[in-house]
Amino acid sequence: MRSSKENHQIDLKNMTVTDDFWRTEIDLVRKEVIPYQWEALNDRVKDAEPSFCMHNFKTAAKLGGKRREEGGKELQYTYRGFDVWPKDPENPGDEFYGFVFQDSDLYKWIEAVAYSLIQFPDAELEKTCDEAIEIVARAQAEDGYMDTYYILNGRDREFTNLKDHHELYCFGHLAEAAVAYYEATGKAVLLGVAERFAHYIASKIGREEGKKRGYPGHEIAEMALVRMYNATGSKEYLDLASYFVDERGTEPYYFDVENPKIQRRGFENSSLPFSYNQAHKPVRQQDEALGHAVRAVYLYSGMADVARITDDEELKNACDKLWKSITRDKMYITGGIGSSHLGESFTFPFDLPNDTAYTESCAAIGLAFFARRMLETAPKAEYGDVIERALYNGILSGIALDGKSFFYVNPLEVLPQACHEDGRKHHVKPIRQKWFGCACCPPNIARILSSVGAYAYTENDNTLFAHMTMGCEYKKNMNGNIVTIKADVDRSVQGKWTAMYTVSGAEGTDFTLAVRKPDWCKAPEFVLENGTMTEEDGYVYMTKNWGSEDVITVTLPMEVRFMTADTRVREDIGKVALTYGPEVFCLEEHDNGKDLQLVTVSRDVKKAEPEFGSITIDGISGVTVSVPGVRSMPNTASGLYFDLADETRETVKLTYIPYRMWANRGENEMQVWTRLD
Amino acid sequence: MRSSKENHQIDLKNMTVTDDFWRTEIDLVRKEVIPYQWEALNDRVKDAEPSFCMHNFKTAAKLGGKRREEGGKELQYTYRGFDVWPKDPENPGDEFYGFVFQDSDLYKWIEAVAYSLIQFPDAELEKTCDEAIEIVARAQAEDGYMDTYYILNGRDREFTNLKDHHELYCFGHLAEAAVAYYEATGKAVLLGVAERFAHYIASKIGREEGKKRGYPGHEIAEMALVRMYNATGSKEYLDLASYFVDERGTEPYYFDVENPKIQRRGFENSSLPFSYNQAHKPVRQQDEALGHAVRAVYLYSGMADVARITDDEELKNACDKLWKSITRDKMYITGGIGSSHLGESFTFPFDLPNDTAYTESCAAIGLAFFARRMLETAPKAEYGDVIERALYNGILSGIALDGKSFFYVNPLEVLPQACHEDGRKHHVKPIRQKWFGCACCPPNIARILSSVGAYAYTENDNTLFAHMTMGCEYKKNMNGNIVTIKADVDRSVQGKWTAMYTVSGAEGTDFTLAVRKPDWCKAPEFVLENGTMTEEDGYVYMTKNWGSEDVITVTLPMEVRFMTADTRVREDIGKVALTYGPEVFCLEEHDNGKDLQLVTVSRDVKKAEPEFGSITIDGISGVTVSVPGVRSMPNTASGLYFDLADETRETVKLTYIPYRMWANRGENEMQVWTRLD
Repeated sequence: MRSSKENHQIDLKNMTVTDDFWRTEIDLVRKEVIPYQWEALNDRVKDAEPSFCMHNFKTAAKLGGKRREEGGKELQYTYRGFDVWPKDPENPGDEFYGFVFQDSDLYKWIEAVAYSLIQFPDAELEKTCDEAIEIVARAQAEDGYMDTYYILNGRDREFTNLKDHHELYCFGHLAEAAVAYYEATGKAVLLGVAERFAHYIASKIGREEGKKRGYPGHEIAEMALVRMYNATGSKEYLDLASYFVDERGTEPYYFDVENPKIQRRGFENSSLPFSYNQAHKPVRQQDEALGHAVRAVYLYSGMADVARITDDEELKNACDKLWKSITRDKMYITGGIGSSHLGESFTFPFDLPNDTAYTESCAAIGLAFFARRMLETAPKAEYGDVIERALYNGILSGIALDGKSFFYVNPLEVLPQACHEDGRKHHVKPIRQKWFGCACCPPNIARILSSVGAYAYTENDNTLFAHMTMGCEYKKNMNGNIVTIKADVDRSVQGKWTAMYTVSGAEGTDFTLAVRKPDWCKAPEFVLENGTMTEEDGYVYMTKNWGSEDVITVTLPMEVRFMTADTRVREDIGKVALTYGPEVFCLEEHDNGKDLQLVTVSRDVKKAEPEFGSITIDGISGVTVSVPGVRSMPNTASGLYFDLADETRETVKLTYIPYRMWANRGENEMQVWTRLD
Repeated sequence: MRSSKENHQIDLKNMTVTDDFWRTEIDLVRKEVIPYQWEALNDRVKDAEPSFCMHNFKTAAKLGGKRREEGGKELQYTYRGFDVWPKDPENPGDEFYGFVFQDSDLYKWIEAVAYSLIQFPDAELEKTCDEAIEIVARAQAEDGYMDTYYILNGRDREFTNLKDHHELYCFGHLAEAAVAYYEATGKAVLLGVAERFAHYIASKIGREEGKKRGYPGHEIAEMALVRMYNATGSKEYLDLASYFVDERGTEPYYFDVENPKIQRRGFENSSLPFSYNQAHKPVRQQDEALGHAVRAVYLYSGMADVARITDDEELKNACDKLWKSITRDKMYITGGIGSSHLGESFTFPFDLPNDTAYTESCAAIGLAFFARRMLETAPKAEYGDVIERALYNGILSGIALDGKSFFYVNPLEVLPQACHEDGRKHHVKPIRQKWFGCACCPPNIARILSSVGAYAYTENDNTLFAHMTMGCEYKKNMNGNIVTIKADVDRSVQGKWTAMYTVSGAEGTDFTLAVRKPDWCKAPEFVLENGTMTEEDGYVYMTKNWGSEDVITVTLPMEVRFMTADTRVREDIGKVALTYGPEVFCLEEHDNGKDLQLVTVSRDVKKAEPEFGSITIDGISGVTVSVPGVRSMPNTASGLYFDLADETRETVKLTYIPYRMWANRGENEMQVWTRLD
């Protein structure tokens, strides 16, 4: 029997991740990142820029969230004008400090804590979080408004700069955190804050007479409101999400209306005003991913949510076009997106430079958000492929193996000297940083890793979709029947992963397990005794007359693959990248010496027998793959330019490590794409 | 008999360039550039940003150069604060407009006019120029101060921002123009202006009590003062030049002293304060070319001038190290320098990206200035090689073949879409522009091309050094004896240049002709009957018992050469560039189709017989070279990344044109470095 295609998020409460690989990451977030970030939010981390996040909430709470009539500092309307820090950080006084979106850091932390508490109850952590939420609740204005920047600076100017001032962005993160915490703990204090603020927003912004016809400058509220709708059933939130989606990019442009004096940003394509904010035309007409990459994929996620829930084919089509624009034209092999540091943005199709890449960790995370929502709309393997690509590569690369430092930017090629001495690459760091003044990435990494189970599976009434190969146990509720699906993943044998799904409690049900065939696996094997298997869109749907316990075995043979890019990607032309399973690999100077530009692999490398090894750094392990290569000897003649001559070369063993593990052994050269000989 | 090594600039008045190639360029400057620029300086060019250059001089002249006590606009001390334009360009009023260095555009124009008048008397042009000079003279303050920016904005703040406000830079261009015009016409009005301003500067700036211990933020005054010293014999100018050279970079840093509040520029290497201005350490200790490339080579030119005239070995050594830093580590094959648009600056050694290159036309021109001065210090072929490399490639590329548009930036690889849609390449233009608000390059191109004869030869008492192969006639004064050296250059035979030097009037003298062996020529032949030839440092010194007329024939066989770069140049690794004679060649889409990244040449290309052709655009001709290549077919599978597979390829003929001719047939792709197969 075939499953319906509709599906939705699983209930994380019923999910226990047991997988060696992913449990390690979840534990890292729980044991390292969450405690560290709490210290950071409270400005207790030495040698890190202070956050002022909790300072701002506490100051607003002291005022009882009441509108400050005067005495706040003057509001800045320039782009960088808001990063103002106190003269004496020890005694910051009653002012707001940090970026306008500083509130969101606490919300992201609470969301990560919520996911963690579901699997790992921790009374002390929950108490800390409850206390933080209490402060948030006290900071909220009586009318429901909740943004410490304007509460502390003067609410007379609230909602006057939706384009750059992030109130609706902070609301979105508040809503995400509130729902997650409610679902994790049953506690509704923060959900109440979010609901009151949502009501307030809906009373001020919308199409009705007397309201501002605005929408978020930085998207996320769209998907967050859908989540609130799912959690509460209140249609007001879905309507507000739909409004935000459809009002966006209509003319006259709201961002022109709200502040005609502000010059449109220089790094935008001038023929596309507000493309930086994806507000250059109505979203249903958009067919190319443009502008700030994180904003873009957050919007597209919200669009996919609204499209699915309202069954809006036109909106689904727009999502489909934008999905293709990213994944066919604008995505690095690591799942990183956003080629340029200017505006942290997408550029034109096939412009994927490796050494100046921006590829913000948050953008790869947002791409996974978008992909999961596309999966919920229609389970197609390509969406799961991208989730895996992003998670194993462009997202995990964002966090050090010890969980203590982070990349904002995830380049595919690094020469440390260039990062230090070439201003064009100052955004590229050769080693991870402890904390950022603009700390969006670390807590974003924390919330996706601590909820990674929600990317492994989705479900509908009778079907459990397995998008990722992850050891876990899920208790699926089928009209009161609890079907337990236990997945044991064996990665111990080189050259294959084996997943054994043990299904129990499904007797008499029409339970179906749909397992994705990963793009990295050429010949997956599915074994289900006495069952039926059908395949559609890259998922194998398996069902049978279930007994008390049935076993499905999925074997995923893995091979070392040498990948080339679309020939329109100029930076990768004549180059090859190595992948093995879902992981992209890279060469590091540490294993292969300096001057990685000198090494090449031959087209015959495909025929060579790769040599496997393993590497463990800070307790986290990975496979290494060694293949034969050639290293050209540097030319030694004096002068810069020489007649073409036969090269002196030596055969070398090139040792690749997983990209996610790079830059964990000190500063060194790295490259993903290596020249073909 | 061997010549002494000292040598110096020739007297352009005794030089007549007859060479087909260079005469065309000189005529272009005379007939197109000089008249056009005069219109531009007077804001009469439609569709071009107004210059306000003559407006500023006329306004200052109206005030009689008298210090304006009040009413000027507030001075801006921020980096971009000075590019302020009037609200109504038709009626700009009595204000200063344009960049702080706007005065220099007129001076550069006058200098170009001067060189042109020497060879091509033009009464009307001379009259126009005299009138302009009259305005300048009337604009000068009574005390000798001469900078319209401060004359119009309030002289109370003169010399308070030497770092960024270009008064000493404008003085340098004034001095260059004044000497050139004096030498060309014998008229000393402008020289008087320059001398009075030089006196004034020397009275305010220097090591003596009560003076500011400053030096130029943008160098040029150093070499200009030496030129004034050469023209007038007044040692005051040489002393001021020496002071500027040696005070630079000493601690405490003058730029800190003059304005402690200004933050050091972000794009500087923070460990090297003021390296942008080459003021990070005393110049004698500098051994790496750093900072703004034009400033750097202007400074090094002044250093070489001072070193030669004062016979200062330590300073010569510093010049030598800086020369090597540029030409061994930081120079494009085109003679372009300055890799980064951030600060228009040098970056680290071997960082020579092709598609984001800055390679300002002015920087290549400045490199030729520096090279000629190094030649004067010691005639070594490598200096002449660089002059030729820059002139034939990175300088000529700056001007359209019709003389009507200009490149500021001279990249070595262009994808027009990237220039339009990728903010990181907005500085790279796929076609030349008519005029720039910051119009340093067009008049700089004009002044070097109209004085190109001064780069062909230098001389000392008995020796004429021929650095370039240029058809011309030079009348050398040897103690009253006029020795005429007529060079006839024949480029009509493919595969060689032949220069026939006819020497007459040398009877009884110890005249020596020293001819450079160009780096692009493997086996030059020198024929002098009954004479003696010795070679040193790449120059062949030829002398004999001269008769009434003797002929020396120099044959320079040329071959198509495929060049590779130092393997540390990552952007050129595995790539090859084609050169033929002194010219670097490039592929254009116009001749080779789109997607130039798909073409490769094989290592065997050296053995192929190149096919020669010719191309003429706007009356200027060049050789084309066609060689066999391969074009990979684009991969057509859907998706961005594919398993490495055998490529489908087709053999193609690759047609190269001289780099100097690129972008003269509309916007299209271009590349100098092509992948090796």
